[in-house]
Amino acid sequence: MPVLPGPPVRTTSSPLGVHRVLEPAGSLPQAARVLDPRAEIWPDEVRIDIETLNLDAASYRQLHDKHAGEGAAIRAEVLQIVGERGKMQNPVTGSGGMLIGTVAEVGPRSPLGLEVGDRVASLVSLSLTPLAISDGLERWDGLGERVPARGHAILFGRSIAATLPEDLSPELALMVMDVCGAPALVSRTVSTYAVRTSPEDPAEAGPSVVVLGGAGKSGSLSLAAAADAGATRRVAVVRDAAEAAVLEGTGLATHVVVADARDPLGLAEALEAAGGPADLTVVCVDVTGCEQPAILVTRDGGTVIFFSMATNFAAAALGAEGVAADVTMLVGNGYVPGHAAYALDLIRGNDAVRALFEGRLAEAR
Amino acid sequence: MPVLPGPPVRTTSSPLGVHRVLEPAGSLPQAARVLDPRAEIWPDEVRIDIETLNLDAASYRQLHDKHAGEGAAIRAEVLQIVGERGKMQNPVTGSGGMLIGTVAEVGPRSPLGLEVGDRVASLVSLSLTPLAISDGLERWDGLGERVPARGHAILFGRSIAATLPEDLSPELALMVMDVCGAPALVSRTVSTYAVRTSPEDPAEAGPSVVVLGGAGKSGSLSLAAAADAGATRRVAVVRDAAEAAVLEGTGLATHVVVADARDPLGLAEALEAAGGPADLTVVCVDVTGCEQPAILVTRDGGTVIFFSMATNFAAAALGAEGVAADVTMLVGNGYVPGHAAYALDLIRGNDAVRALFEGRLAEAR
Repeated sequence: MPVLPGPPVRTTSSPLGVHRVLEPAGSLPQAARVLDPRAEIWPDEVRIDIETLNLDAASYRQLHDKHAGEGAAIRAEVLQIVGERGKMQNPVTGSGGMLIGTVAEVGPRSPLGLEVGDRVASLVSLSLTPLAISDGLERWDGLGERVPARGHAILFGRSIAATLPEDLSPELALMVMDVCGAPALVSRTVSTYAVRTSPEDPAEAGPSVVVLGGAGKSGSLSLAAAADAGATRRVAVVRDAAEAAVLEGTGLATHVVVADARDPLGLAEALEAAGGPADLTVVCVDVTGCEQPAILVTRDGGTVIFFSMATNFAAAALGAEGVAADVTMLVGNGYVPGHAAYALDLIRGNDAVRALFEGRLAEAR
Repeated sequence: MPVLPGPPVRTTSSPLGVHRVLEPAGSLPQAARVLDPRAEIWPDEVRIDIETLNLDAASYRQLHDKHAGEGAAIRAEVLQIVGERGKMQNPVTGSGGMLIGTVAEVGPRSPLGLEVGDRVASLVSLSLTPLAISDGLERWDGLGERVPARGHAILFGRSIAATLPEDLSPELALMVMDVCGAPALVSRTVSTYAVRTSPEDPAEAGPSVVVLGGAGKSGSLSLAAAADAGATRRVAVVRDAAEAAVLEGTGLATHVVVADARDPLGLAEALEAAGGPADLTVVCVDVTGCEQPAILVTRDGGTVIFFSMATNFAAAALGAEGVAADVTMLVGNGYVPGHAAYALDLIRGNDAVRALFEGRLAEAR
């Protein structure tokens, strides 16, 4: 385990983890360049023995593209990042990922309710989690977001971790919990839109939802959450026929539309045949340029939730103003109380979305 | 007036202005690199004879810094941008600004309700408005955001323009309308928080608001809107004593706190003496790094509105998740129906905020 130079930063711990920040001083762990990943814990911390890291999709894609898909080079860069920064935060995308592990030690003042031996997933990003890798990632070929690893990670007083459920495989649970903020926020938002009494079109009795990237992980769970919360018209926008096939017959979406989510006019035209603009538009595609298209397919008085880390803030703000669109635009907060339990329940109760996730797991193997 | 090469892009016009996009084809005017600023109008367009451009503050600052404050160089670059792009969109910040002018021609199918001779301000960004400058900006020294100019601009079917009020100077009205999205959205959001019956502290009877950058234009109007909408505790965070002095005695804020809005822990500590976290935090400072500090001074269940174009989307999304903050984060949409009239009414009814704006105008002269 690497030992970083320098004295302990603070002798008292902060629930936010500030005592682990080596530089720049005074920043929070997420914004910090370097964290102190020492194994000794402060009284409100928890140490996890790592089993698996799941790299954030945007982060892995950047590494994969940079190294032209060469696994050894990707692995070397991940090791270098963790060694230098004391955390796995991609310096280009700023994003991290999640981890699975076993609780190794619980500080006497930890508020997380964990016990030694619990198998847990960390629900805060790796981009702010002190991390040390001890096996050189020797069991990982660099080709895939799922990284078997040995080493340890630290949870702070205000971190979030979930015990892995016994009825689902840890890989499936992790994949679901990785995107569990999306369905929780979609459900909450759909619930704010009223049910229409006696609509002209029965399909518009409940709120309507468009999900850009509906065949993906956060997209398909968002569709399941929208259905659960009462949305009657649910439109999935997908990239191509292969993605459309994933959703066909699942009942997750009432309409599946193949269109380029970055093409504002093309998208709006494609949606005309699927009922037109919706109360809620959910952006789950990890590419830039979907901001204004998403705004244009949302009704006046509607909401857009941006879950993609590729979202450009100014493009969203100016994009809505530029077309005089009275829409509420939400930054997709990955934390909503109860989000992990809700997402796992959606998976348990919805065979279609469960099959979709299990299919992705099989592909990743 | 420069004449751009190439044929008209489309023979029918789009309310979004797509027919004026020269490249890349299929994009909207905001995202386009080059617009066609020809003076001939399509049937749903309006042509404005320009009097004044008001450059966006972030854009002007970038140009000012790039050219080390040399006015002639700043002017030359603005002319170059408009000449090349057919619009005034800063290629670095992506932002534009606003304009004042007189309606020169109204197409027979324009829905904007304007008449030839009306003095108007355009409420859509210059970053998407076809623009041609005919006087070489000879009356502008390059030193200041306010640019006297001759030439013309085009409004589309779905643009927004407001007739200048007769009881306020055009400079004051423009300055107010430039930031009028902020008070409208603040008012709407404050209204969603319930009044507390019999609070322990009477100051917490209504919703509470923290405004980062409370002495600025959008910040002070946000404070006025918060008061108007019933917020009882209103905390202004300002950079230094000079900014604090601007607000002292105005009644806009109930607490004025001098603190660095980029320092998460420092800000949270500074706010303890002003009642602690609030229901709504409004970010009006044009610097990066305020995302997580804003989240940390917001109550669970509260809302953060980001109005700064310097906001980093990923920092906001990951920042909330990283500290398990259940806050609603809004992208500050510059358009809310009735926003200009509401902001002008706030100025008319609030001597403090009016004096503050008039002081800024005097400084700018």
